Amino acid sequence: MASIRALVLNCTLKPSPAPSSSEQLGQEVLAALAEQGVDGELVRVVDHDVRFGVSTDEGGGDGWPAIRAKLVAAQILVIATPIWLGQPSSVCKMVLERLDAELSETDAEGRLLTYGKVAGVAVVGNEDGAHHTIGQVQQALNEVGFTCPAAGATYWVGEALNKVDYRDAGPKPDTTGRTTKALALNSAHLARLLAEQPYPPPDARGAGVGPSRESA
Amino acid sequence: MASIRALVLNCTLKPSPAPSSSEQLGQEVLAALAEQGVDGELVRVVDHDVRFGVSTDEGGGDGWPAIRAKLVAAQILVIATPIWLGQPSSVCKMVLERLDAELSETDAEGRLLTYGKVAGVAVVGNEDGAHHTIGQVQQALNEVGFTCPAAGATYWVGEALNKVDYRDAGPKPDTTGRTTKALALNSAHLARLLAEQPYPPPDARGAGVGPSRESA
Amino acid sequence: MASIRALVLNCTLKPSPAPSSSEQLGQEVLAALAEQGVDGELVRVVDHDVRFGVSTDEGGGDGWPAIRAKLVAAQILVIATPIWLGQPSSVCKMVLERLDAELSETDAEGRLLTYGKVAGVAVVGNEDGAHHTIGQVQQALNEVGFTCPAAGATYWVGEALNKVDYRDAGPKPDTTGRTTKALALNSAHLARLLAEQPYPPPDARGAGVGPSRESA
Amino acid sequence: MASIRALVLNCTLKPSPAPSSSEQLGQEVLAALAEQGVDGELVRVVDHDVRFGVSTDEGGGDGWPAIRAKLVAAQILVIATPIWLGQPSSVCKMVLERLDAELSETDAEGRLLTYGKVAGVAVVGNEDGAHHTIGQVQQALNEVGFTCPAAGATYWVGEALNKVDYRDAGPKPDTTGRTTKALALNSAHLARLLAEQPYPPPDARGAGVGPSRESA
Repeated sequence: MASIRALVLNCTLKPSPAPSSSEQLGQEVLAALAEQGVDGELVRVVDHDVRFGVSTDEGGGDGWPAIRAKLVAAQILVIATPIWLGQPSSVCKMVLERLDAELSETDAEGRLLTYGKVAGVAVVGNEDGAHHTIGQVQQALNEVGFTCPAAGATYWVGEALNKVDYRDAGPKPDTTGRTTKALALNSAHLARLLAEQPYPPPDARGAGVGPSRESA
Repeated sequence: MASIRALVLNCTLKPSPAPSSSEQLGQEVLAALAEQGVDGELVRVVDHDVRFGVSTDEGGGDGWPAIRAKLVAAQILVIATPIWLGQPSSVCKMVLERLDAELSETDAEGRLLTYGKVAGVAVVGNEDGAHHTIGQVQQALNEVGFTCPAAGATYWVGEALNKVDYRDAGPKPDTTGRTTKALALNSAHLARLLAEQPYPPPDARGAGVGPSRESA
Repeated sequence: MASIRALVLNCTLKPSPAPSSSEQLGQEVLAALAEQGVDGELVRVVDHDVRFGVSTDEGGGDGWPAIRAKLVAAQILVIATPIWLGQPSSVCKMVLERLDAELSETDAEGRLLTYGKVAGVAVVGNEDGAHHTIGQVQQALNEVGFTCPAAGATYWVGEALNKVDYRDAGPKPDTTGRTTKALALNSAHLARLLAEQPYPPPDARGAGVGPSRESA
Repeated sequence: MASIRALVLNCTLKPSPAPSSSEQLGQEVLAALAEQGVDGELVRVVDHDVRFGVSTDEGGGDGWPAIRAKLVAAQILVIATPIWLGQPSSVCKMVLERLDAELSETDAEGRLLTYGKVAGVAVVGNEDGAHHTIGQVQQALNEVGFTCPAAGATYWVGEALNKVDYRDAGPKPDTTGRTTKALALNSAHLARLLAEQPYPPPDARGAGVGPSRESA
């Protein structure tokens, strides 16, 4: 059985050591993945000096290349993000923009490096916004080559217009905990399948090349 | 190698025999799937008397159960939809709502019937709205148990504020045609993997059960 | 002070007399508008035979023209919709598509008929999806000529993955009730301003014409 | 006639002096506003040291307070943003998150400072994503108290999967130019109305208070 690693990117706005609800849910995803035999780690993106941009390395001490090396070595990527104004965080969007560069990164057979990788999403907020945030992240990750497993997201939000954080309200084993376990089970299974039997390389008719990269 | 079938649901607002750009792109997806050894058919949803609702059968001559039978027999579902006001069509949303019922439909081992199925998206519009429409459809289909293959969408739209239809402007082999072929290649590969090695059933810890169904 | 009328369109999937949470919130918006001196009524769209399409009248007994006549006579439109799969209902999308036709309907001075009208949004669901649904409806209504007042939406959803309806959980005077009152206060004020001092007609340089209509 | 000022925030990822298509469209909006008698300026956000966060001042040299002072002095805010992966830029999301703080900033009568302000949106991309980006920005700005004028957005994108920038393809007087002029005409009119006749303050029944601020 293929050995599988996971990378969870915590996209909170707050540097360590501030408490972070998305860190808590991200750690719960890692624990559920460990039950499926998947090793992994969590990186809080804002603790590193990641630059705005759409290349693999923006230079001048950019923190992204070191994070990207962990991603290249992993078969499962989980984006953990808070919700602000019903939407994914700006740090989450910055990460997705950096991943746009993967549309230029191919292996010896012409496949995107992301083609072997599975993507999950973990979202927390005080109230509302989870489905939309999941949709935004899945659409972007799918476009740059990740595969989304069945039930590929877990989330918690409170009742409308409430103000409690997940790190105070959770864990919620019967709702969020259940979707976290499903995400882990399905991600691990799918990542192993793709590690053992990767998508075929582009053929002579051009199939498999996928979307080109926007230049702007 | 597992035998795989595809169902393309054309979500145009216009009944047959009106010409339909989403029908054209849907047929191109079917042709690309045929090159990968996948048989399939296209159904124009609005030609059938599908009812608003969130059950598998709304009764009284509802056209959905017959379409659903084709879906149950297929391993690949492709939603083909036009864009209106930058968003998926109301017929597309009606289909997604009917698929919400699948969150209650499980096999003998407790897995959703959708867990073995792969979902693709094909979108056309005069101008703008494809990425958003793709994201809406992928988020909804993923939530109800479908798996999204890498680069799991194909689309065409014209320049901003233009008025040409895809059926007049297309085909576009170097752009849309390329993403159509990638969608077909990846969908066929992933559907075969999942047919041969399905997601594991929920285990004693509850992993794999996934999101519950909203009751409203 | 200009006399102002409101029309609330309830976009539930369920025909009368089935109970509807979006009807309840829609009625609460009407009551709050009445406190601001605004008369109005609520129409449950699915009780009428509204057809899929993008014209003002699809013919053959289409129920939209009668609803549209009420809209033309109103200065405030409120879209009340349930959430399904985190998104606005298919009935809501059908209404937005019919409103696309307003991009061709102008007064004697070349202004869209919608230019004098204010749009509000009222959203209910068992869990999550309100912000996204509000954004979808506001973007579409704004594009076809409606003006969105400050804090132009009210909503209720329960905690993540819960199943209680607003008609059982509500009313919620300290959260949803407060945003309902703000929506009513701001809508009434803005509708009166625009009734008394409408947007200027397009000038010789073409300003004011706005987006053209998509033909597809 | 009230004197009106506009602030355009360019949310490109690229610091000056790199060329920026959103800067070009933002300048076109300013020029169209000048034809309506509105003075204004454009700020490229990424040139200033704006921090991630949700307060009015994140401290330690945060560049946001100086930009916010310009916003407080303006009656029209225009968000100009590029599209990446079909979505608004991370810099745009960072700006929206900083504006979340405005939900705590009220005048002597208890109204949000944003209640007198009108918001427009200007979007550019190589291909697709404008409607969605407009919807995201409008929903967030409306929630924090801005009013959206009829036809309150202008945009340009190229045909699907193309790679040309607006600064090379534009200007487009018959499409984007027309919506730019409409945005300017309607914004100027509405901002003057609200400057002269502001939304009423919250009354004894609590109307007008609007959404509370999320604490997380």
